[in-house]
This record gives sequence, C-alpha cells and structure tokens, in this order.
Amino acid sequence: MTRVTFAITMSLDGFVAGPSQSEENPLGIGGMELHRWLFPLQVFREMHGEEGGEVDASTPVVEGWFENVGATIMGRNMFGGGPGPWGDDPWSGWWGEDPPFHHPVFVLTRHAREPLELQGGTTFYFVTDGIESALAQAREAAGDEDVSVAGGADVAQQYLAAGLIDEIEISVAPLILGNGARLFANLDGAGLELEPLRTVEAPGVTHLRYRVLAPTRRAEAAG
Amino acid sequence: MTRVTFAITMSLDGFVAGPSQSEENPLGIGGMELHRWLFPLQVFREMHGEEGGEVDASTPVVEGWFENVGATIMGRNMFGGGPGPWGDDPWSGWWGEDPPFHHPVFVLTRHAREPLELQGGTTFYFVTDGIESALAQAREAAGDEDVSVAGGADVAQQYLAAGLIDEIEISVAPLILGNGARLFANLDGAGLELEPLRTVEAPGVTHLRYRVLAPTRRAEAAG
Repeated sequence: MTRVTFAITMSLDGFVAGPSQSEENPLGIGGMELHRWLFPLQVFREMHGEEGGEVDASTPVVEGWFENVGATIMGRNMFGGGPGPWGDDPWSGWWGEDPPFHHPVFVLTRHAREPLELQGGTTFYFVTDGIESALAQAREAAGDEDVSVAGGADVAQQYLAAGLIDEIEISVAPLILGNGARLFANLDGAGLELEPLRTVEAPGVTHLRYRVLAPTRRAEAAG
Repeated sequence: MTRVTFAITMSLDGFVAGPSQSEENPLGIGGMELHRWLFPLQVFREMHGEEGGEVDASTPVVEGWFENVGATIMGRNMFGGGPGPWGDDPWSGWWGEDPPFHHPVFVLTRHAREPLELQGGTTFYFVTDGIESALAQAREAAGDEDVSVAGGADVAQQYLAAGLIDEIEISVAPLILGNGARLFANLDGAGLELEPLRTVEAPGVTHLRYRVLAPTRRAEAAG
C-alpha cells in the first residue's frame, strides 16, 4: 500500500521558517540555521552536484526521504515565483534545469498553467482544483511508490487536517526561533494521535518519525 | 556550579495543556493524554504513595528530574487556588500534606502570603517581587544543588527570555493537540541556540535534553 509521507525540519518551538520571509530570504530570519545539520552532508551535496561531504546518523534518514517516492506535492509558495498569475515569463522553480525530484511534482496553485517538463525526469504539473485532486493525481503517477508532501507548512496543515498523511518525520533543530512560520498552525480541533516509529539522534538534529493514526485507530489507541 | 533546569511534557505541536483549562480540568481537553506515558511508571506511582508500576527507558529520565534538586520555582497558576488574594482559608497546593518536593518551593505571585510549611521538608515561600528575586532565593536555598523551574509555561517563558535557564528537557508526547497552552509562546525575538545533550526514546514519549547557550556562546556556536 503506498504511503503519503511528509518530512520537514522544525525548530524546537515549532517553526519551519523564521520571521520576515521574503523573496531574498525565503526561509526568514534565522531560517537557514534550521538546516545547518544538513548542508555539510555528502547526501545533500550529491543532490546538488557537489562532491565530498560528511556521513553521519542523519545520512540514512535523508536518503529515506527520497527512496521509493514516485510523486511529490508542493504548494505554490514553495515552488516560488508567486503569488498571482504566472505571467509571460513564468518562474520555473528554484532547482534549475535538472531538479532533484526525477518524478512528477504537483504544484497546488490558483492559477492554471501548462505542465513544465524539465530534465532528468522532473515534470511540474499545476493543480488548481485542490488538495484531494492533487493527491489523486500524485497517487496515480506514483504507482506502487509513495507520495511525498514536500511543503510548505500550509499545505502540510491541509493534508494533516484532512487525515490524508500516513507518516510524518520531524527533524528537530536545536533552536528556539521565537517566531516565524509555525508548522502546526491552523489545526485547532484536529486532535491527532501519533504512533512513534523511530527516533534518530544525530549531530545537530533529532529526527522523530511517526505514523499518523486514522480516527478509528485513534479511538482504539486512546483506549 | 548549580544549574537552573526546566523539564516538561509537550505535544509534538508544542502544547503543555489542551484548550479550555479550568479548575475541574487543569490540563484542558486532551491534556491528561500528554502524560499517558508517565502514569504507569513505578517511579511516578512511588512519588504518590502507590505500589507497583513499570520500569522503562523513561525511568532514569524521570528520576533525573528530582536528583540533586535543592529548590523549586513555580507560578501561582501551577500552585493553584487563584487568581487573586489568598483569602481566609488559603489554598495549600495540589500535593496534600506531604508534598513530593522535600525542599523549599518558591511560588511567584502578586499577593503576599506567609510561608507555608508542610510535612516532609516542603515549605512554600510566596515571592511577590519577580522572577529574579525568586531565583536568587531559590539558589540560596539550594546551596550546591540545582534549582528546578517546575512551570507553568508562562513562568518558563519568562526565565527563558531572561536567559536564566541552563538546561531544558522536553518530553515530546506523540500527539498533535491543535490548541491549548503553547510552551514557547511570548518568545518573539528570543532566538536561543541549544546544545543537544541527550535524546532518550521510550515507550510513548521521546525525551530531548538541551543546554541553553549563553549569548556569547550562541554567537560562537553560530560561527
């Protein structure tokens, strides 16, 4: 059975970006510090065409984010170039001509746009009719493989609130940012039970992986 | 050097109590679920005069919260019986005649009150002149031992924002509550660096312990 997964790095106080996000500073003030644990790793550098780097306990965790993934879903703000209509010279993403996905990527947006096929097997599809439509298309594209929800926080919140996420992995960075984009905002009334799957302590980060329980299983788990 | 420590259980989405806290339901809706991992443990039951219980990876963590502690600080809301003046038959805490502290406990309050000496070595002192005064008195009372900040969230926020906490331990419960008392609220601009000390994966909870870095050390750590 394919899984719908979501993995992200979060400060201890729950932020996935710092305050004052902008085009120049998309992760906000202090936001890049969240990922400080990731940048030196060989697995990260390889994805960006660079040689060398470190191997540590985070390495298999990061590799796991990309294994067996057949499709990705992301929000317009994460894809970039927005907001508003795409215009005459439409933005083609942050990842250059050969993005690291190598599979279909479904971008949630209000503004229609033809698919954008780039090199290396990545095609961006622009979905204007909501999260369930994007997920249905992603599942079909993924076949037997998993669907990854890449972000942003607002997209993850919508999928979590709708009970559509199967597993989450939160990489907790050793920071208290104080403000910014709060991952678990807009979930009042959601009340989700989680089943711990794995905890990995690594240099500069702790990875917490959970299964998100379905409502019936939540009632059973609550006993 | 004595340490000022703070340990608390928090949902993955950052809440230490659920919504709609009340006298009848001091931890709010779903709040008791936060502590589900703790209640069956022998170490917890012993503290409340009951026999039996389980031993698991959380046991040494919980024992550690009480080792080498010479004084505790808590807020009025945690002590209970409020808000407002203490009145003619003043509330004497949630813990009965022989509270489990066995050392001086300093309660932050706006309303003056004589010390309350109970059995087993616990005396509650009521401090009306602020967090630094309470901490100074607690340090003096603790001698060579540590000072524990027990809570609530608002008290912890004040001490964190003032740079007065040395170590924190967050016991992350596998829940997304959606709303309630958010532990790290009111810290806009705080920007704290943490140094991971220990991660303990245990049944139904993951304990994350950090040293809180001083501003100079934060600047150095940020490199």
